[in-house]
This record gives sequence, C-alpha cells and structure tokens, in this order.
Amino acid sequence: MTVRIAVLGVGRIGKMHAEIIATKVPETSLAGVFDVNDAAAQAVSEELRAPVMTVEEMLASPDVDAVAVCSSTDTHVDLIERAAAAGKAIFCEKPVSLDLAEVDRALAAVDAAGVPFMVGFNRRFDPTHAAVQQAVASGQVGDPHLARLSSRDPAPPPIEYIKVSGGIFVDMMIHDFDMARFVVGSPVTSVYATGAVRIDPAIGEAGDLDTAVVTLTHENGCITTIDNSRQAVYGYDQRLEVFGSTGMAVSENPMKNAAMVYSASERQGSVLPYFFLDRYTDSYRIEWEDFARYVRDGGPSPVSGADGRAPVAIGIAAWESYRTGQRVAVDRG
Amino acid sequence: MTVRIAVLGVGRIGKMHAEIIATKVPETSLAGVFDVNDAAAQAVSEELRAPVMTVEEMLASPDVDAVAVCSSTDTHVDLIERAAAAGKAIFCEKPVSLDLAEVDRALAAVDAAGVPFMVGFNRRFDPTHAAVQQAVASGQVGDPHLARLSSRDPAPPPIEYIKVSGGIFVDMMIHDFDMARFVVGSPVTSVYATGAVRIDPAIGEAGDLDTAVVTLTHENGCITTIDNSRQAVYGYDQRLEVFGSTGMAVSENPMKNAAMVYSASERQGSVLPYFFLDRYTDSYRIEWEDFARYVRDGGPSPVSGADGRAPVAIGIAAWESYRTGQRVAVDRG
Amino acid sequence: MTVRIAVLGVGRIGKMHAEIIATKVPETSLAGVFDVNDAAAQAVSEELRAPVMTVEEMLASPDVDAVAVCSSTDTHVDLIERAAAAGKAIFCEKPVSLDLAEVDRALAAVDAAGVPFMVGFNRRFDPTHAAVQQAVASGQVGDPHLARLSSRDPAPPPIEYIKVSGGIFVDMMIHDFDMARFVVGSPVTSVYATGAVRIDPAIGEAGDLDTAVVTLTHENGCITTIDNSRQAVYGYDQRLEVFGSTGMAVSENPMKNAAMVYSASERQGSVLPYFFLDRYTDSYRIEWEDFARYVRDGGPSPVSGADGRAPVAIGIAAWESYRTGQRVAVDRG
Amino acid sequence: MTVRIAVLGVGRIGKMHAEIIATKVPETSLAGVFDVNDAAAQAVSEELRAPVMTVEEMLASPDVDAVAVCSSTDTHVDLIERAAAAGKAIFCEKPVSLDLAEVDRALAAVDAAGVPFMVGFNRRFDPTHAAVQQAVASGQVGDPHLARLSSRDPAPPPIEYIKVSGGIFVDMMIHDFDMARFVVGSPVTSVYATGAVRIDPAIGEAGDLDTAVVTLTHENGCITTIDNSRQAVYGYDQRLEVFGSTGMAVSENPMKNAAMVYSASERQGSVLPYFFLDRYTDSYRIEWEDFARYVRDGGPSPVSGADGRAPVAIGIAAWESYRTGQRVAVDRG
Repeated sequence: MTVRIAVLGVGRIGKMHAEIIATKVPETSLAGVFDVNDAAAQAVSEELRAPVMTVEEMLASPDVDAVAVCSSTDTHVDLIERAAAAGKAIFCEKPVSLDLAEVDRALAAVDAAGVPFMVGFNRRFDPTHAAVQQAVASGQVGDPHLARLSSRDPAPPPIEYIKVSGGIFVDMMIHDFDMARFVVGSPVTSVYATGAVRIDPAIGEAGDLDTAVVTLTHENGCITTIDNSRQAVYGYDQRLEVFGSTGMAVSENPMKNAAMVYSASERQGSVLPYFFLDRYTDSYRIEWEDFARYVRDGGPSPVSGADGRAPVAIGIAAWESYRTGQRVAVDRG
Repeated sequence: MTVRIAVLGVGRIGKMHAEIIATKVPETSLAGVFDVNDAAAQAVSEELRAPVMTVEEMLASPDVDAVAVCSSTDTHVDLIERAAAAGKAIFCEKPVSLDLAEVDRALAAVDAAGVPFMVGFNRRFDPTHAAVQQAVASGQVGDPHLARLSSRDPAPPPIEYIKVSGGIFVDMMIHDFDMARFVVGSPVTSVYATGAVRIDPAIGEAGDLDTAVVTLTHENGCITTIDNSRQAVYGYDQRLEVFGSTGMAVSENPMKNAAMVYSASERQGSVLPYFFLDRYTDSYRIEWEDFARYVRDGGPSPVSGADGRAPVAIGIAAWESYRTGQRVAVDRG
Repeated sequence: MTVRIAVLGVGRIGKMHAEIIATKVPETSLAGVFDVNDAAAQAVSEELRAPVMTVEEMLASPDVDAVAVCSSTDTHVDLIERAAAAGKAIFCEKPVSLDLAEVDRALAAVDAAGVPFMVGFNRRFDPTHAAVQQAVASGQVGDPHLARLSSRDPAPPPIEYIKVSGGIFVDMMIHDFDMARFVVGSPVTSVYATGAVRIDPAIGEAGDLDTAVVTLTHENGCITTIDNSRQAVYGYDQRLEVFGSTGMAVSENPMKNAAMVYSASERQGSVLPYFFLDRYTDSYRIEWEDFARYVRDGGPSPVSGADGRAPVAIGIAAWESYRTGQRVAVDRG
Repeated sequence: MTVRIAVLGVGRIGKMHAEIIATKVPETSLAGVFDVNDAAAQAVSEELRAPVMTVEEMLASPDVDAVAVCSSTDTHVDLIERAAAAGKAIFCEKPVSLDLAEVDRALAAVDAAGVPFMVGFNRRFDPTHAAVQQAVASGQVGDPHLARLSSRDPAPPPIEYIKVSGGIFVDMMIHDFDMARFVVGSPVTSVYATGAVRIDPAIGEAGDLDTAVVTLTHENGCITTIDNSRQAVYGYDQRLEVFGSTGMAVSENPMKNAAMVYSASERQGSVLPYFFLDRYTDSYRIEWEDFARYVRDGGPSPVSGADGRAPVAIGIAAWESYRTGQRVAVDRG
C-alpha cells in the first residue's frame, strides 16, 4: 500500500518534502499540494505532477491518507486540529508550536482522534546519529554519564526569519534538545543556558543570540552539553557523542569528499558539506519511509507528540535560564 | 536547453541511466527507451513516463538529441555507427567493444560524422577521485612517480555474465586502466599482469580470474599498480593514490556511516557501502551533467573515443602478459 | 650550558621528572634527589646515578641551578619560598597550592627574588594541543567563539588520594582550566559547574565528584565547555577544540596503534593509550627542554606564576558554583 | 636475569641500539662497545657508561651474554662465525650478507653452535604492523589473496652509501620482503620487479634505482605488491595491508600530531614523522625486549636465520627480474 500524502505549505522545507514523497520513497505518493502563495503551489504542482488543492479538499478527499504540515509555525496547531478531526494521519514540521499550551492543544486533538502523528525531527533518521542511538539503546556504552552535541550552521538565516523564529534555543537548538533526549534515551529535567552575539549585531538587535551553550541534566543522571553557532565557515557541523560506564559512541562529521593531498608541509582535505540537504539527504528519505511504515502498520510513532513537546519545553526553559543566569527545571507536562 | 536523450538498452545499467536522466539532472530529459526485451522497455517507460521507441524511431526523431548506448557490448559498434550516421550525440557504456578493430571502426564512424561522443567511465566524475586528478593536474604532487589503485567488488557477478564479459582485465580492471590514465595524466605504454582464482573455481572453469594484479608503465615514467578482487566481504572497495616528486594525493573509501563506538577493548565502526550505486551515486549524476554541457556547449569530450579505446588495449595486453608471464607493450593505435 | 636540576620529592611524578631530566633531555642533568621517604630517594639515586641530598644541601649547592618541586601539594609554598630565597630557578608541579592566599605568598616570594619560575602544566607542551594553540594564536580560526575540552582518566585514583586532592575541579579539571586559558588565549571571568557521582559511591562519600561539567566565559567572549570523568574504559581521553569566526582547530586523540581490521560486519581498531605517560610522553620531554631554555636564556616563563594561580582560582569558583547552582565570578587576583 | 649485550659497531644504527639497550629496556644492559673508529667507540662509551672492548675481549668475557652485530655488512658473517664459536647469543643487523652463500655460511655456524640468533628486522615489532600480522595469523582476514606494502623514505642516503648498499631491492626493499613474508604468513616463490630513476640521476649513475615496484607470489597464492621511493617529501611513509577471503587488515601511517585546522576552504593537518627513529621508536624497544626474552627463555627466534636469508634471496631475484623483464623464481635454500 502506498501512503498518499498531501503537503500543506510548499516553501523551502515543504517543497523538499514534496519532492522526496513524489520521487524518492516508493512507499509514498504525492496526493496534492497547497500553499498560501498560489504561484508557489502551482510551480510545485507542475514539477511534481500533483494537483493543487485547498485545505478543505485535502481534508475531505478519500484519496489523501495523510497530510504533511509544513506551513509557517503559527498555523500548525489549527491545521493539526482540523486534520485530526478529518481522520488524516499527520506529519508536522518542527516545532509544533512556540507555545506549550498550544502544543498541548494539538496533542489533545490528535489523541482524541486517534490518528497517527509524527514530528519532523529528521536528524533521528541520519544513519550516523542513529548508529549512536542504537549503540546506547543496546547497552554498548553502559549507563550514559556525559553527552556532547555540536550543531553549527554554515550561515545565519535572514533577520526577518530570526525575528519570528522564537530565538536560537527554540528555533535551532530544538533539534539538539530532541537529539539529546533521543541518543541519551532519557528525559531532560533541568537546563542551564548561556550565549552571546558574536556573528552579527543585527541578530542581537532582533533580541536573539547567534552563539549558545547549554548544559542539560537528564532523568538518568546524564549531563549533556550542547553548543550552537549560526555560522561555521567550514560548513554544516553536526556532531554528537554519548559517553557511559562501558564505552562511548560518537557521530563524526562526513566530509565533502574523502581525498587527502600531502605536501612537504601539510596534508589537506575538503571541508564539510555546506548545506543541510547535502548533509541530511538520507535522513529525510528514511524519515518518510518510516512515516509510511508507521501509517501503514501502526505501532508507536517514530517521533511522537511527546517527542514534539519536550524540546519546546526545554527551549523555553533555556531562554529563562539565559535571562536569569540560573539553572531552570523543565516543564515536563 | 535540455538535452533530450533516448536510452538504448534498459537492463540494470541502462535503467539506472534512464532514471538519472529523467529525474536527477535538470539539464537532461528522457526522450524514449528501447530494449530487446519488450517488457523491460515497457516497465521503464511507465515508471519514467517516456515512450517506448524502436531504434529506427529514435534515430529518426527530431526530438532526440542524443542516444545512450547501454545494450550488450556486442551491439555497441553497430549502434554507434547508425547513431553517428543519424547525427545523434552518443553516450556509450564501457567497453566500446572487446575487439580493438571494432573500437576503431566505431571511432572512425564518430569522427566521420563529427558527432559528440562520450564513453561512460563514471568513476572520473566521483568527487573524491576527481579531487585527486585535479591535485595531480594542477601540479600539487609534482611529477608522478608511483600510483596505486585498488578496486574490489563486494561479490562476483553471475557466471553467465563472466563468460561473455571478456574477463577480469577487460570487464572489471578496464575502469582502473581508465582511472590510471586519468589521474596520472599520461598514456600507458606497457603492462605486466598476474592473477589467480581464489574466490570461486567456477570462475576459473569459465576461463577467467577473480583476483588480479597489474603493473603499468606510463609514458611519463610513472609506475602504477592495480589490484582487483571480485569479492571484498567488507563492501565496495575503491581507492587510488598518486605519489610524486612534491607530494601525494589519495582517494580514501567513504564509509557507510561515520559513527564510531569505543569499548574497553576496541573501537568499531561501519564498513563500506556495499553497492556500486551507493558508492558512485554522485558520479553518475555528474557524468550526465557533464554530458549535457558537452552536447550543448561543445569542446573536448569529457571521456573521448581515444579514452574509450586505450583501456581496451591495455586489457588485451594484460591478458597477453598474464598468459606469457612477460611485460607486454600496449597497442596505442 | 646544561641546567643542573635537583628534584624535591620522587614519588610517581617526581621520579618520572628525574628520569626525563637525567636521560632524555640533553640540556638538563640531574643534580640530586630528595624525598621524605629515604628509601625512595635512595632507589632513584641508584637508578639514575645522582646523589641523595637534603633540601638544605640542594639550596646551598653551587652545582644546583634549579629545583623541581614535586613533593606533596601542602609543602609547595614553603619550598618555593626557600628556593626563591636561595636564588634557585624553580619548577613547581601543579597545583602550586589549593589555597589562593598561599599561591599569592609563593608568587610574591618568586617576584621578590626575581628567580625563574615555571608551573608544570605539561599538556601545553603536547604537540597536538600545541598545534591548536598555535593555530588560534596565529589567527587561523579568527575570534574564538566556542571551545570544548574533554578530559577523561582511564581509572580513578585511590580514595586516600581523592580525600586530600582538593576535589575534581581543583585536582583534575585544573589541567583543563589551564588549557582553556592557553588555547583560547584569554582569561576566564566566570564559571558555571555541575557534576555527579556515577563511577564510585566512595568518591561521593569522600565529598568529591567523579563526573563534572563546567561552562567558562572568557574575557574575549569565548564560551568554553569542559567535561571530566574519572573513568573512561577505552583509555585516556584527551581532546580539545577551538571554534572561531574563520575556522576551527581540533586536537584529536591518538590511538594505541593505527591498524584497522575490516570484516563483513564492521571495521575495528585499537582504543586509546591507557596511561598518561604513554599519551603525554613527548609533552614531558618538551616541557623540560623549554624549562632549560627559559632558565638559560631568560624571557617570559613558559608557564608563569599567574598561569599557576588562575586555574586554582577557577577551580575554587567551580566548587562554589557547584554548591550554589549559580554562575560564579572568578577571583582574578 | 638481565641480558648483558656488547655492541659491535656503533655507527648510526649501532649507537641507537646501544642507547636502547643501556637506557630503555630493563631486561638488557650494555656490556661494552667496539668500533673500528676508536673515537666513536670512546664517545658512546662515555655517554652510556659502558667500557670500550676489543672483539676478542667481548667474545672471551663471561660478563657478555650476547653480541649485537651492527658493523658494516661485509663484516657480518665473520663476526657471526666467531661469536657463534664463542657461544654468544647473536643479534645481527639486516642484511646478514649481500651474498646468499655467505648467509648460508653464517647460518651453518649458528646451527653448529646452537646459539640464539636473531636478525634485526625491527618493523615486525611495530605495534601497528604487528596488529596486522596478528589479525592475519588469527584468521580474521581468512585466506590472504592480496597484500600491498608501500615504503618511502623521506630522503635518499648519501651516494657513497648507495654504492655499497647492494641496491634498492637488497638495501631498502629487503624490509618489505621480510614484512610481506611476516604479515602474509607464507614464503615467497617468485618475483617480478621494475623500477626507475626519478629522484636523483646520480643514483642511476651509481647503478641503482630510486623508485621500484615489485610483485611477489607467495606459496599460499597471495599476490603482493610493494612500492619503494627514496624520497617522499611528506615524511617517512610506511603502510601495509593484507586482503583475504573474510576481511582486510591495514596498517595506516601515524601522523606527526593529531591536530586538524578547518577553514572556509580546507581542513589541514600535519604530515608524517620524517625520521625512521620517530616512526619506529617503539619497534626498536620491543625488538630488544623480545631478544632478551628469547635469550633468557629459549623457544623459536623472533626473527630466525631463515627469516634473515629469505629477503636477501628475494632481493637478488628482484634484481634479476628487473634486468630481464621476466618473473623470476626465488632461491628458497
């Protein structure tokens, strides 16, 4: 059975999902696209040979099994409620909402309808990160004592985006909060956050940071450090490790290519992939394969509503810690 | 301008090319497909939404700019002659032919017609190997003194394939002969070959080897060693290096993933990609991008007829060396 | 000119220094040894063919250019005062003292006497760490934004040692505080510390931690994270990195050996050197070469009194932060 | 029991052995030194506090358990005969002789006397190479099919040395012939050799090559390729690998240090250790530990007389192959 998916919102990330659904995952097909920008919807429709639909049409159509909510964050919760009421399986881009009460409203609607629901934390599906998670989950590193994550973007997003993003802890580090929970295998109980504006003063003027460091404490006692930067000149730097009582599992960066040139004075190789799509190509494809399997076969969600809520709560606590200079307990719902 | 390409022969490799042409390279489109197995052609036609055509239709159609000759090796030369006469640009899978006189006949037809012609040595387009070639060509390693290439397949092909393949030196090592010429940047003048049957006695009974080692001498004095095995249990092993008067450039293997797990006794990571498509995905895409640019803009062929002929000549000399135990001069046309 | 060095205290670390001075550094010679345990002094004396001396004899002898203070920490300051008064050059093992006022008393004595003084932070002399420092100091990474250090011992020291050590932040992480200052190239202004007892409850009963994480803020705005564990089963794990506006410099772990074994399911290599002497052999030798050069030629101390004081102050602030859960400003003297 | 060793010949390599024996291996002591250059013997004697002795004194002394024959190659066989007759254990630097009949005369004398005898092929004791050998010997790679060895010196020796060295196949590649036998675990039956003068015409004028490539066939069917260069500008390049039916074991190069610096355009690290002592420090120490254990406890020689003979025979066959252009069978005694 092919899972027929309609994509709500075909901006940069939504269009990417639509392409993957249409051309790279045999278990899925693209049932239709919608965007508030009609020209954008039209263009994707033509390229991928799927109809433009209204939201109402998507939710009413018997030929749509699932919707992918890829519109702007402030529209997520309403769309989730409507899709749940229509009985559709739901994929929602991160974050579900910047507001915990709103997140809870969306999750309640999903629960009430009993529809499949998955949040788009694609990094969980990266084969290298996943190998770390599997090593930890299978006991190879023993009890986790320490974890480290570094996520550094190649370049900052536009200031207009920064202004509505919720800020670095909710917009960018949310991925790391999710990954910390995922690879350590334990909820986060408290957070200490610090940060700075080092790359672009305009980011500071917008009320945000571009450099941030967080220390998390997990329920199982593991202490995790995360650092983020909005600008790593050498590319998209994505590393994590878990250290435990019987070992360590590390996810190293892939390089653009594997060539090395040796001269009398140095050996020299390529830097990292620059673009998140190059780095995480496989993760997006595998994410949709897992979504299709989940919708078809049931079972627990690969990334559940609770997995969508927790990183938002950690991000909100991180902002509070940053402002107070104190460790802050995380709202665990 | 999109280059409209018809694919002649949609077995394993031809089907892969058709998919890339149709879906992954914006500069190309799939104009049609043909296969002696009509069901195969029909299946690819439906999946990729391109018409099934006869060879005659392809060569006559004004909507076909180029043909990709991906049929069985013994049909290549005739098809090249016909396509050249029809004025089509030609992409030909390796080898052009197992017979040098036949190769020369094909190249003569191409020359007479003045059509673009490129041979499908995809490894030249692998970013890691290409970085080695660029380092050498730009002088970073100085005069090449030594080169080493290892190509080891994850598993042998079927015996039926082996029997018509021309044998390991022409079927498999031909890629390395091409890469040796490409990365060293100099023609090959002589060859010494040895080999063995170590993996499957049936390969020996078919008159072939499954393990082979060759030493090449290049016109510029570089000495190159190549080893091939039909079965590397740890995956598809593809490495090369060029050592020269001022340095060395090395193409290392990528790994399946970049995770490492440390325990008290060892550190452990993944092995290599198993399948040539996983390893060389990028190379095939870039190959078609370069073909499209070449057809559109002219200039020298990325992999010329002479580049197609030389590795066949080296392979034939290698078989002679293997049989006589002596170094053999290469027929350089 | 050979620098003639008398070693005060030949326990584990003092004996190691005596051996290096006597046999591995041509610019130094071993002038004599002293230990409160006379048998220990006698054994080292015989093995290294240097006389046993009293402290008084060392300080009075015209054949002693310098003393290496390697006795228990509580004796350092008195010995430094006496050696300074005697006009001897002084090498002092870390920490100078667990008490900042005592450190200041020692440094005042050194200043008053104008004798050469160097603190034994050997990691600064490790070629890999030093390459990171040089990359930062030469501007290759631009303005430092983030640094990460991990130091993990292969196994905890005896509980008796733990009890008098000053605790993990002063005994163990002091090396990382020094390295953070060294590689980032800027003083530390504040510290946030957390930690846990995960390896041995006896360490907790002794009032200490065995797992610790610290976030430092430097005067230049760099934010540094440090993690320590008393037990890494895979060996002595010593890594650091500095990330800045134009790049990143990383010090990776060396491995016990560079062999890799590939099978059908994994690739497998050795783990890390287990013992600090194996890991830091070169650093100890280079440390003494630099000390000899400094005593002979003058110039700034390779590791000055201020460099000895700062990490003690950071360690004391870290304990306060750990106890209060708040960020603490560092006493900068 | 300490093995008391007298060193015959304290030129560069003999002096190094004397130092290791005297200061780095607790199981050995330096009983005395001899050199035809009396000043050289005197200098080493003073530095290492061991007496200068005549050969006669060494062989007659009850305080000498073993002699290390480190004099010029043409003196080895006579000294071995005399030492064997005197009942001393013998360590002989490679090669035993450039002449197979002479080698056989030495081995006959050793056999007749029944004294311990070991040849100084230090690379066998390198931990990384040894890990490869152990992986093969323990069956981890299955039946060896292919092996590759690269040995490249940082710079050529003086022409005067070249002239009396026996040439590249006997002087330099002899180490690789030994390592090929060692890691593959099977004797060599035939050899094909080629080479060139690429680095210094004076080497060619002296009748030698500076660049050489050899293909070996082993009794167990493994095919081994070796390349040598007298000048690798990036340091002392020493790699080997064995590929077999169930896996591969690889000995990679260590680097000078493990730092990497990332910029916007490249990542850059150190090159290789330049000097053979830096690269093989551990191997020399372990070699003497094994010699001491062998002399003390008996058992098979770590590097037997047959192990000393075989690489000379392969080297002689390589020169014949180079001259004739044909594969040559190896004299296996």
